[in-house]
Amino acid sequence: MIPPAGAGTDLERACLGQPVSRTPVWFMRQAGRALPEYRAARGTGSILSAIADAPLAAELTLQPVRRYGVDAAILFSDIVVPVHAIGFGVDIEPGRGPVMAQPFRSAADLSRLRPLEPETDVPYVAETVRLVARELAGTGVALIGFAGAPFTVASYLVEGGPSRTFAKVKSLMHADPGLWAALMDRLTAMAVASLRAQIEAGAQAVQLFDSWAGSLSPAEYARFVLPATQAVFAGIADLGVPTIVFGVGTGELLGLMGTAGSHVVGVDWRVPLDEARRRIGAGHAVQGNLDPALCTAPWSVVEQATREVLASAAANGSGSGHIFNLGHGVPPEADIAILGAVADLVHAESARE
Amino acid sequence: MIPPAGAGTDLERACLGQPVSRTPVWFMRQAGRALPEYRAARGTGSILSAIADAPLAAELTLQPVRRYGVDAAILFSDIVVPVHAIGFGVDIEPGRGPVMAQPFRSAADLSRLRPLEPETDVPYVAETVRLVARELAGTGVALIGFAGAPFTVASYLVEGGPSRTFAKVKSLMHADPGLWAALMDRLTAMAVASLRAQIEAGAQAVQLFDSWAGSLSPAEYARFVLPATQAVFAGIADLGVPTIVFGVGTGELLGLMGTAGSHVVGVDWRVPLDEARRRIGAGHAVQGNLDPALCTAPWSVVEQATREVLASAAANGSGSGHIFNLGHGVPPEADIAILGAVADLVHAESARE
Repeated sequence: MIPPAGAGTDLERACLGQPVSRTPVWFMRQAGRALPEYRAARGTGSILSAIADAPLAAELTLQPVRRYGVDAAILFSDIVVPVHAIGFGVDIEPGRGPVMAQPFRSAADLSRLRPLEPETDVPYVAETVRLVARELAGTGVALIGFAGAPFTVASYLVEGGPSRTFAKVKSLMHADPGLWAALMDRLTAMAVASLRAQIEAGAQAVQLFDSWAGSLSPAEYARFVLPATQAVFAGIADLGVPTIVFGVGTGELLGLMGTAGSHVVGVDWRVPLDEARRRIGAGHAVQGNLDPALCTAPWSVVEQATREVLASAAANGSGSGHIFNLGHGVPPEADIAILGAVADLVHAESARE
Repeated sequence: MIPPAGAGTDLERACLGQPVSRTPVWFMRQAGRALPEYRAARGTGSILSAIADAPLAAELTLQPVRRYGVDAAILFSDIVVPVHAIGFGVDIEPGRGPVMAQPFRSAADLSRLRPLEPETDVPYVAETVRLVARELAGTGVALIGFAGAPFTVASYLVEGGPSRTFAKVKSLMHADPGLWAALMDRLTAMAVASLRAQIEAGAQAVQLFDSWAGSLSPAEYARFVLPATQAVFAGIADLGVPTIVFGVGTGELLGLMGTAGSHVVGVDWRVPLDEARRRIGAGHAVQGNLDPALCTAPWSVVEQATREVLASAAANGSGSGHIFNLGHGVPPEADIAILGAVADLVHAESARE
């Protein structure tokens, strides 16, 4: 990992464990249905169409920055955009998630996963990044790009859609490790290509979403998933931007995730951040970890929970190296006044003189 | 906890950490749609009707014992049977789960939760237990009764159905701890009444399903949930049967669950059993923890995973005090030949001379 020189925003500095003016805060899935301006701008069109409309995607990316006063925008996109763009056959069903017309089942399906060529396959992604970066220049707000981690993208491809058990993808990795490795290689190359294009267009940091890694045992994660995740971060290390890896329910995996090669490890609400730091190991920042289920609770409850996250992140003198976030995405029914108040509280409590 | 004298079956002895002839094995949700004889006997009627038909429920309870050769039957029932029986207004939707006509929202709803009187409210439960106990007498196969833990039942009552975020129930416990405590008290009394009736009718062990406790942070579990769970086990301790507590995704909670008052703590597939034993603490047996997602994998994969569970359970010389099980329920698409082979392998590997 080459440390970026002169990282400009609090978000970037926090990722690197450097001093910040105040603890940066953003919310996973902050651009979404909880915002009335999002619902108005999105209308009833498909999300993949909105992502491919760069001016609209840029507007959706910027809305939560205006609404909440957060320290980072995250590109409005989806982890299945690359596989959709190369013609794998993906739809995103409202209220359900990504669904494959023909799931990945055998070696023959590898031919359906050609390399991603960002300039021709997803030109709208770089265009959205450029539009947003132009708007954010000089504001101190960072733009975060992202990709799906190979395992989590594979889970959709193999299961055919969202899953509770991940039975098909687990069966594949155990039963045919060679095919699994080949699938991971394709998806690793795709994530690297996608992230490089976003960074080159102006993303100042990137997050790799391995959202469902927590469904795996530590042994499965170490053998079948971690090498690909490491390869993604190795594949963008020369670009020198701060990197974040995140999954939900990863309490048993944090030590392994600390070896993935990212600067930051995101943590869900089940593990207090001081304990998470111990498991992840030295040299990493942490991101999290307010329970998103509290986004509809009374303010007094959310206020106390927010203070507890800040205290836990600062325990043992490790006040730096913390990006405040939820432990998972903003739910559609979240109270947006609460989220704005959380951002304000984090800023007020952490302001350095 | 009064240790039962002269516990007769391997299942009971394993719960108490006593020597067994071989490691007992059963599968959560072993009576279910994976079995053709279950689908034939159940037909298309509602599950609540099947539960209320004691001869049918007894048959469904016994089917997996015949099919798999497991060491325990678990009563065919559901954790919402008591609240359904007192007229709270519950339906179980196929493929979805328990749904409330009118969710629990305020103190006024407490009046909808009158005490359970098992003899008049659910006479069919004790009748089913008696029918099954008669069939199993002298076979060495134990009958396990069960109830839903107060938190997990409350999650259905408050959310109105299955939930991914548990936002409403978490908001209630934080925002109105007094009302939450009152709700827990009602559900504790209901679980105690239900379990006592099952034990008195002949259940030789009981499991308390706190299936969704893993959605909580350790601080939430300790403050809002554990006291009620402890009260359930305290309320049946005088009956002297072995007790099991189980939830999924509970890696962070195992130490606390070890103080709940049960003889056994069930563990999902995310934590190896040797590490689980360390977290739970001395004096407890463990139950688990083959990943149910592997129930559709090739036998060579399942065989290795089964051996790993057995080895982990026996690590550090702690070979006794293990009940083999899945880490969560049998999925409907499970390969029943695989499950039978797992039971055989566990028996063969663990047979004592």
